[in-house]
Amino acid sequence: MSQFQPTERTQVKRLPKRGRYDRETVFQILDSAFVCHVGFNVDGQPYVIPTNYGRSGDTLYLHGSSASRMLKTLGAGVPVCVTVTHIDGLVLARSAFHHSVNYRSVVILGTARLVDDPAEKMEALRVFTEHVLKGRWVDVRHPSEQEMKATSVLALPLEEVSAKVRTGGPVDDEADYALPVWAGVLPLETVAKAPEPDALRKSDLPLPAYLKNYSR
Amino acid sequence: MSQFQPTERTQVKRLPKRGRYDRETVFQILDSAFVCHVGFNVDGQPYVIPTNYGRSGDTLYLHGSSASRMLKTLGAGVPVCVTVTHIDGLVLARSAFHHSVNYRSVVILGTARLVDDPAEKMEALRVFTEHVLKGRWVDVRHPSEQEMKATSVLALPLEEVSAKVRTGGPVDDEADYALPVWAGVLPLETVAKAPEPDALRKSDLPLPAYLKNYSR
Repeated sequence: MSQFQPTERTQVKRLPKRGRYDRETVFQILDSAFVCHVGFNVDGQPYVIPTNYGRSGDTLYLHGSSASRMLKTLGAGVPVCVTVTHIDGLVLARSAFHHSVNYRSVVILGTARLVDDPAEKMEALRVFTEHVLKGRWVDVRHPSEQEMKATSVLALPLEEVSAKVRTGGPVDDEADYALPVWAGVLPLETVAKAPEPDALRKSDLPLPAYLKNYSR
Repeated sequence: MSQFQPTERTQVKRLPKRGRYDRETVFQILDSAFVCHVGFNVDGQPYVIPTNYGRSGDTLYLHGSSASRMLKTLGAGVPVCVTVTHIDGLVLARSAFHHSVNYRSVVILGTARLVDDPAEKMEALRVFTEHVLKGRWVDVRHPSEQEMKATSVLALPLEEVSAKVRTGGPVDDEADYALPVWAGVLPLETVAKAPEPDALRKSDLPLPAYLKNYSR
């Protein structure tokens, strides 16, 4: 797959060998998470808010209540930063200094566009639901006209994008390898536990296939 | 424990019943994670960068290479936002609209202070290491003078702080409870897998106790 063009703002300067700009890496990181952290300014104060997202091609969709400060601020067309991070493990070196974390992250800079067109908006909500849980959209009641009005959808083009990836074991100073300190990686993973049916259900329904063996 | 005083900027306005301001909730959220997302501005563009942190009392410590843009920017005393988020589960409602996520998040606003005092700086690095892996500090080689110079430590006071928490099952529209749609919660959890000893080790060492049954 093709590359995103690094810019002065997205070129990874610290530890540049961790920087990645290819769509394959960026899309894998975006598609295997579903919560991002959105950064924006209000009166010069940065805010960082966790929220869900979906991706369709080179567009990232955000959504929320039409009444929310974040959606109103971003809908006005201000600079935004969206960051998605996976933590894959603790990297335990022989010195405190060389401790690290294995991670994969994507940083997107740009300006979001409010999605007005009802067809694109409905499609974005489908993308959204399917991004979190593939197969869910056909099962559920779709948004009513009133629910569509209560929801704002933002589209952020994937143009100024970079990824940063650290993998592998610790890198210690040569002299430290002789120290009697356990070193290596503690892998971390997000797993799903047993689904918990709603206590308010009217009847028991079979568990949908997409909830058995859920993993990202 | 006592409360943080909500301000105009930290009072949770959307879904205010999810807002929490007590130290107990805030500290539990901060202490059970170790990666935060830091928001700051460079030339009016917000950036959101994932990084490690540690907490000591009402102070959050950040650190990084003295050469990094984030550390240099924040060390100059600009407004910052630090957000910590746990994702606890997918909340599956009968309508697309009422789908949600169970989460716990903390948002801290303020201005960070560069830690210059060598004793406080060393203590912050201890807090840091212990925050990620309790028991690790006594095992490892401590930072040399040169490593201390290469590291910047920032202290962010926990003053303007709020937490937001969602728990429990879906809340559906009354009419939707009759729909034949599986509804409930899919709990998510971060777990540690088997520790992987460094391939470059000179000898096999017993696994430290803090790596058996690691959980946050």
